[in-house]
Parts: sequence; structure tokens; C-alpha cells
Amino acid sequence: MERINSVIENIAGIDQAIVKKTQERLDNLTKPLGSLGRLEELAKKICGITGKDSPSLENKVIFTLAADHGVTDEGVSAYPKEVTAQMVYNFLNGGAGINVLAKHVGARVVIVDIGVAADLKADPRLLVKKINYGTKNMAKGPAMTRDEAIKAICVGMDLFEEEYKRGVGIIGTGEMGIGNTTAASAITACFTGKTVEEITGRGAGLDDAGLKKKIDTIKKSLAINNPDSSDAFDVLSKVGGFEIAGLAGIILAATSKKVPVIIDGFISGSAALVAFKITPKVKDYMIAAHCSVESGHKHILEHIGLRPLFDLDLRLGEGTGGALGIGLADAAVKILTQMATFKSANVSEKKND
Amino acid sequence: MERINSVIENIAGIDQAIVKKTQERLDNLTKPLGSLGRLEELAKKICGITGKDSPSLENKVIFTLAADHGVTDEGVSAYPKEVTAQMVYNFLNGGAGINVLAKHVGARVVIVDIGVAADLKADPRLLVKKINYGTKNMAKGPAMTRDEAIKAICVGMDLFEEEYKRGVGIIGTGEMGIGNTTAASAITACFTGKTVEEITGRGAGLDDAGLKKKIDTIKKSLAINNPDSSDAFDVLSKVGGFEIAGLAGIILAATSKKVPVIIDGFISGSAALVAFKITPKVKDYMIAAHCSVESGHKHILEHIGLRPLFDLDLRLGEGTGGALGIGLADAAVKILTQMATFKSANVSEKKND
Repeated sequence: MERINSVIENIAGIDQAIVKKTQERLDNLTKPLGSLGRLEELAKKICGITGKDSPSLENKVIFTLAADHGVTDEGVSAYPKEVTAQMVYNFLNGGAGINVLAKHVGARVVIVDIGVAADLKADPRLLVKKINYGTKNMAKGPAMTRDEAIKAICVGMDLFEEEYKRGVGIIGTGEMGIGNTTAASAITACFTGKTVEEITGRGAGLDDAGLKKKIDTIKKSLAINNPDSSDAFDVLSKVGGFEIAGLAGIILAATSKKVPVIIDGFISGSAALVAFKITPKVKDYMIAAHCSVESGHKHILEHIGLRPLFDLDLRLGEGTGGALGIGLADAAVKILTQMATFKSANVSEKKND
Repeated sequence: MERINSVIENIAGIDQAIVKKTQERLDNLTKPLGSLGRLEELAKKICGITGKDSPSLENKVIFTLAADHGVTDEGVSAYPKEVTAQMVYNFLNGGAGINVLAKHVGARVVIVDIGVAADLKADPRLLVKKINYGTKNMAKGPAMTRDEAIKAICVGMDLFEEEYKRGVGIIGTGEMGIGNTTAASAITACFTGKTVEEITGRGAGLDDAGLKKKIDTIKKSLAINNPDSSDAFDVLSKVGGFEIAGLAGIILAATSKKVPVIIDGFISGSAALVAFKITPKVKDYMIAAHCSVESGHKHILEHIGLRPLFDLDLRLGEGTGGALGIGLADAAVKILTQMATFKSANVSEKKND
């Protein structure tokens, strides 16, 4: 906890002077005032976060954390749990959605086993930071111990620190874990006060009977564990997941180093919610890429107070929506740093009203 | 008209067999069914348009057509009309929003003077296809002759054909013309039947008095010219613009060659509407990038039946939103062509329901 507390203490507010200066600069570029809408907001936010008037987003990193969930024993997913490990190999071989979209926006993907329920084949591109072989079945007791939750957050912080040393301008969150929408829904129910029905979706593709079973399982898990919603670590350990904890750690660490964090979909959103409950100071450093089809996601975004950049009916996770968000952030910063001003281009300004 | 009729005759329906095959292929990729939402729809649409199961979007072209509008004499724009020519120089020097965003997505920009009210300095990168030195003031009579409208459409077709010879996988529409939201609003009012108030916005930044003057001017222009909404050429010549006509020609020509067209904002939307009124067959070949802040744009999209990909509060034009749309189209096709299948990646498929 000492480490986590020390990171939290290092989180400052964003630089409002730079935000103001960026607004002035945007207003001098050869375009009608405000006509690039949310790209301009995004540019300002990134300048405020980084404290730089010409931030470089050259180094883009997406963290894709994989872990298993004991709650899959209850039959809450449309896919067998072996898919978590299989998809890690797919990430390593470059065949998954996140590989394609990360490459599209020029981001590198950091692939981490933070709790897959199998010993994966050694691979120099795979970081093995296993907390345990999947969480325990939260429908029967806590998903993990409080110590494991704290350890997973610290692993996330380590992961960020390692990349930070290599140079990183912006990061995206991503995950893989069969059963993890069940954990994300339980977390969301705890923190937002919404009913389980309101925040539970079909995940990777449940039918009506599967959805009912999932809702019942989440209700049972909350009843058995009775997580204390005023204690983020209690919620995380009782109904969370290792990848969710790790992502919360990454968000906290990035925030303390003034690196913008693009939040992907529902699971990443639940990690953002955990980080936000640990300290609301993270809010200004987070950028919500999109709004997932999973119904809980919009409640998370509303609760934190983040407006997503786009809505493309995505529900894949892995960091795929975040990758597209990183592309937009890149475009926003290029507008700021590459466009001519009215003066430099000899373009007449607006007539006086 | 012969040329235009011949192009229209060459427009076929999209390839439904390829669309079906693409859906099957998407369903075999390592992701839950449909989980990449609108990216999957986009990939299917592009396959259907091109008739190819692995379309290449390597060659991306954005056409930015510049022209002036006589109606600026009525004081309908927040910027002086000289800005049209000044912005063309800015495009040539790479300092405008479209230069930055086109470069971001790897598209080349074709810059065309199709009716700027000044003789621009010769530049090898500028295509001079001037129909006239700006349109006439539509508040006092027709903006152009019917012959000029047809000529401008044919110029658009020529522009596309030239690029097509060089190789082009996808195109975006763009424009620059002080006063052109006034023309676009008049066109939109004619074709959608909405009131002038409903489809008129603040353009590059009018205040309340300016907006009122713009609305009054559009009403006056429609009353004086009485365009026949059942005749697209009549509407285009009486209350249109040379860049709008040229873009309609580009859309028609691209459609006849099975090249997907990404539509930018309100002015590009009005050109799409003109093309749609010339022949509704263009609809399936058009992809709406975004929904502009200009209120008329959403009515255009609803009228044609296009759902925009995103909404970033843009209102710059030039092709900027279209550039971002091209980036998404590129991502969508990469998903289709670069992701592994369940079989190739040895990933287990969904359990039987």
C-alpha cells in the first residue's frame, strides 16, 4: 500500500496555464474558431495532461493484460475459458484485432500474463507477471485476497514504469479474460449503485438464458461477498480480476507521470472506475475512446464524467477501441503542431461582428 | 449531358455475393461475432462496392475543390471572400487542416480551382479548372447557367478519371469556398423540404444578426429563382456552387468505377444530395464520415439514408472529417485482411447455445 499511496501523492492537477495557451494557439490556426470541435478539446486536454505545449505522441503503447476468472465455473461466458490462453498466443503471433489496430495507429502492444490459468509457453514478447492461476469463483467467495489485489495493482505500476523508461507519449488500456465482463459488471454495480440488470450485457455473445444466469451469478457474488463500495480495494479483491487491478495500477502510474491514458471499453472502464475510486485525481488524465455495446460502460462513463470520442458499436476489448482513440489523439496533436496560423499563411481573419 | 448520362448508366448495384462472403469471413476471425460493430459493416460495404474480397485502400485521394460565391455580396459569411484564394495557397503550402489530416491517414490531396474569383498564381500542384470567377449572386438571379452546372459536373468526372488512371482505392470529398454553407443550405432546403431555419447554421462563425441575414438571403434566393426540386440540374444551377457541382461529378464518376466515396461535412453532403437526386444509385457507394455541427447536414444524411461513422462536432470542411473517415475505412479493411481466423490461430469457437 505504501507504493500505491506514494504514487497517488504524486498525482498533480493538469496544467491549466498550458490549456489556456493551447486554446489561444488553436484560435490562431487557419480555420474558423472551434471548427475542429472535439479534436481541439482533445489537443487541449493532452497539452494540459503532459504540461507541454507541443507534446509528442510518437511513442504509443497499448497494454493488453490477460487473466482468467474462476466465475466461469458458473457458465457465465459464451466461450470456454481456454480461449484466454489461446488468445494470448494469438496476440503474440499478431493475429488478433488489437494487433491489427495497434499497428494501424503505430502503437506497440505490451502483452502480459497477469493471471492466466495455465502456464504459457515462454516467449520473449510475453511478460509473465502472474498473480495466480486465475481468480477464485466469486460466486462462492472472494475472487482474490486483498494482498493479491494490491500486488496486481503494483504489477500494473511496474509495467507502466518499464515502458516509461523506454519513452511513452500516450497509452491505451486493453485486456483479455474469458468471464471478465462478469467481474466488470459486479464492480460497476458496486460503485455506480445501478441494478445488476442495468449494467450487465451479453459479453462475448450470451443468449437470453445465458444472460439470466450471468445476472443471477453477479447477484449471488455480491450477496456472498458483500463488498464495501467505499473501499475500492475491497470491491476489487472480492469481485474483480487480476487484469482489471493491473490496468488500474497502470492508470494510476501513468497519471502520476503526466501521460495521457486512453480508456478502451467496458472492462478497461471498470479498471478506470477502480482507479477513480482510489483517487478521483485520475479523471483529468483519462480519455474515453468509445462507448461499448455492453450496457454497463455508459454508466461507468457517466459516473466518472467522461464523454467518449466515438460510438462504433464495439465490444471486443483487448484495447481495440483505445487504439482507434490513440489515432484520434495523434490527429488532434498534429492539428495543433502542424497547421499554419492566419499570420504565417497570410490568411485574413474573421470580420469584426 | 450525354457524358453524364453515360456515367449514370454505368453505375451498377453493389456486389451482394461478396458482401455475404465477407460476412462469413468476418465471422471466422478471432473475435466474438459482430464485436467490431461498425468496422465490420464498413468492411462489408467496401467489399460490396469494390466487388473485391480483399480490397486495397493503399491509394487514398481527397479532392478539395475551391470556388467563390457571388452571394457573399449579401454579407452571409463571417469571413471576407478573399479567404477562398488565400486558403488555396495555404492548401498548396501544406498548412491547412486538410493537409495535416490527409497526411495523418496517408491520403494525397488534389487541390482544384473550379471557380475561385481571382487568377491564382500558377503552381504545378494546383489544378485550374475554372468554370467562372465565382458564381453570381443567387439572391438576385441564378448562381450559374445550366450549362455551367453541367460543365462543372463534367470537370468533377474528369478529375476523378485522372486520379483513377493513377490508381485509387478510396476517395474523400472536400471543398473550400467562402459563402458555400449558404448555397448548401439552399440546396438542402429544396431537396429535403425542411424550412430554411431548420437547415441553416452559423457557417464559419456568424453571430445572431448574421444568421438572420443568411436565412433571409436564402429565402430571397429561393423565392427569386424558384428552383424545381424535381430537377437536380435546375437546383444546382440556380442556388448551387461550382465546387458542389464538381463534387457531385466526382461522386458519380467514382460510383461508376466502384470506388468507395467518403463524404465529409455539410457542403460535401449537399453535393452528395445533388448526386443522389441525379441518380439514387450512388447511395450504396457513399460512406458518411461524420455529422457536422451545421444543422442542415443531419437532414441531408437522413434524407439519403446514411448513418455517419462519428460525431466530433466538426464544421471545418475541406475534407477534414472525410480524412478521418478514410482512416477508419482503412482500419476496417485491415481487420478483414490481417486478422487470424479461429482455425489458423487454434482458438476455440463459441460454445453451442
